[in-house]
Amino acid sequence: MPSPQLAVIGGGQLARMMQQAAIGLGIRIRLLAEAPDVSAAQVVPDHVVGDYTDLDTLRAIVADAPVVTFDHEHVPPEHLRALEAEGHACRPGPHALLYAQDKGDMRERLSGMGIPAPSWVALPSHGGLEALAEFGFPAVVKTTRGGYDGKGVWVVRSTADAAEAFSSDRPLLAEELVDFTRELSALVARSPSGEVRTYPVVESRQADGVCAEVIAPAPSLDPALDAEARAMAERIATELDVTGILAVELFETTDGRLLVNELAMRPHNTGHWSIDGAVTSQFENHLRAVLDLPLGATDARAPWSVMVNILGGAVEDLEAQRAVVLAAEPDVKIHLYGKSVKAGRKVGHVTAYGPDLDDVLARARRSAALFTTGVTHD
Amino acid sequence: MPSPQLAVIGGGQLARMMQQAAIGLGIRIRLLAEAPDVSAAQVVPDHVVGDYTDLDTLRAIVADAPVVTFDHEHVPPEHLRALEAEGHACRPGPHALLYAQDKGDMRERLSGMGIPAPSWVALPSHGGLEALAEFGFPAVVKTTRGGYDGKGVWVVRSTADAAEAFSSDRPLLAEELVDFTRELSALVARSPSGEVRTYPVVESRQADGVCAEVIAPAPSLDPALDAEARAMAERIATELDVTGILAVELFETTDGRLLVNELAMRPHNTGHWSIDGAVTSQFENHLRAVLDLPLGATDARAPWSVMVNILGGAVEDLEAQRAVVLAAEPDVKIHLYGKSVKAGRKVGHVTAYGPDLDDVLARARRSAALFTTGVTHD
Repeated sequence: MPSPQLAVIGGGQLARMMQQAAIGLGIRIRLLAEAPDVSAAQVVPDHVVGDYTDLDTLRAIVADAPVVTFDHEHVPPEHLRALEAEGHACRPGPHALLYAQDKGDMRERLSGMGIPAPSWVALPSHGGLEALAEFGFPAVVKTTRGGYDGKGVWVVRSTADAAEAFSSDRPLLAEELVDFTRELSALVARSPSGEVRTYPVVESRQADGVCAEVIAPAPSLDPALDAEARAMAERIATELDVTGILAVELFETTDGRLLVNELAMRPHNTGHWSIDGAVTSQFENHLRAVLDLPLGATDARAPWSVMVNILGGAVEDLEAQRAVVLAAEPDVKIHLYGKSVKAGRKVGHVTAYGPDLDDVLARARRSAALFTTGVTHD
Repeated sequence: MPSPQLAVIGGGQLARMMQQAAIGLGIRIRLLAEAPDVSAAQVVPDHVVGDYTDLDTLRAIVADAPVVTFDHEHVPPEHLRALEAEGHACRPGPHALLYAQDKGDMRERLSGMGIPAPSWVALPSHGGLEALAEFGFPAVVKTTRGGYDGKGVWVVRSTADAAEAFSSDRPLLAEELVDFTRELSALVARSPSGEVRTYPVVESRQADGVCAEVIAPAPSLDPALDAEARAMAERIATELDVTGILAVELFETTDGRLLVNELAMRPHNTGHWSIDGAVTSQFENHLRAVLDLPLGATDARAPWSVMVNILGGAVEDLEAQRAVVLAAEPDVKIHLYGKSVKAGRKVGHVTAYGPDLDDVLARARRSAALFTTGVTHD
């Protein structure tokens, strides 16, 4: 088999959707998959099943690939530094990825840059409870590493509430509980040459700490805030030397400010709308960015695009249900990830677009509900 | 590996682009590829290299696949009938595919239906030259089977001109040399349940008998002719019981009539614009049709879409040239097929879309020229 042009570590849905973009661009991907037949392994012939925490496995995958990128942010940084030292281009590199892997480092770095963010304090394993009490309540306690989709996050109103968070000696931090009206997300693609393109800022709606739906662009967003969010994403990507897609998750506060909540350095759930809704999808721009190809336009193709996640629910056979959904909503775009259904697991998403937001939102929600519960409630 | 939902015979670019659509829909494809690492084999893990003219090879491929479809029309009809007799769903079936495989059968059937077409006559191996002389000159002599991209077609003005055509004893036919202003193409998707959706009629421009560029929709097409072409495509698909995509290639004559030139029963070069330019691409609707899923809207997403083929030329390393093209035209959509470059071979296509036809045409042509000759001429 000819050499790949890109190695991708991790075989989840993000790698799967990268492959969809890679087919068009003629980019050969080699994949490191966690297990046989995971989401991306189903669609990337040149894949190896192995452990991404094992340096020799990583070395074998990237051997003849000029560039390596990631489906997730969990590859040990010391391994990435080793690969870099051996001459491989890791995009994003470990020096940038650090700030998506460790919330403490991220908070410290963004504070140093003067980026608006919730007030925060590190909670050391010795004296952490005292530091929390001094910081004050209510507060949000987070593990600095490994949390996602609401896991590793506790809203606490007293030191007693924080008992679970402190039950192991994970590094923690506390943040102010922000009084926000909604969550926004600013995506940016950046190449090693420094070319940067920001996507329209979107509204992200969560349910139980998990992204449920995304509206592009964020409805009624003050153009000044849209510009501020995009400028912030561009500045963070540039100063942290991110390559590929950077997602900056933001709070829009009740008093009209933007505060950075989280960073992700990979294609992001809040950018899935772009596959059907933008001139260049986040997956295509991620590939173009990490391979240092010129980036594509990030403009929306329709006045409104709405992405709704399909979370595992009562419907077990998504493939059989596909016919039901398409019969109800023939023009919604379906994206199934080839995953088995487990309660709450992201197993796909749907995107609708068009000129009328209420209609677009209703169509996307109905379709996702048909995949999740098997019935619609409107 | 889990069972596929669809077997695809043939590993060319059409199967490759089917896979791109299949990833989104969550459809598992098994592929029969002509050789290792052909275009679609690069992106379909579940593939077997084998000979599509061998019945046992076909049997092994379709064994646990409920439906089988095709990248080309060259599978022997008797094998398809055998697979059908053994309970496999061939879509399109051999009874329909016949009319894409044999121009004589196609002409006879369409004449019987009263579909407007060039006048024609079969040229038997004995007495064919006399039949041609009686038919008159100028004429177009064609092999009834196996011709494509201008091969197996001769424009003759005398019996002497027809010597090459008659040099082997292939079945031939003669057609009138139509006085046409341009070529059009009407695409239709049809499912086994009988659902039918037609795409906007496009203009197809040939160079040396090969499709060079496609403009969607066909500029300045009389709405009555658009409707007539779509109705004709729908009627042919229905009466011939075609499943999947049917392409009806048409002449628009100087006196304003439509005549059927060719039929193809698979996604077609004249429908590639739909990947970026339509709500539902021909590849997605082909999959939806052959799996008897509800079909998606065929409307154009932009006022104009232009597809230009990338034919093998002076540029040998298409992957290296990709950066040059994207730098010149960052918003043109590139589709490379993973094929090695040979003179005149279709190795990819580009699509541009937007509100201004001249601009769209210029961008698509420039991009394709950069891939073909390495320079632009405007």
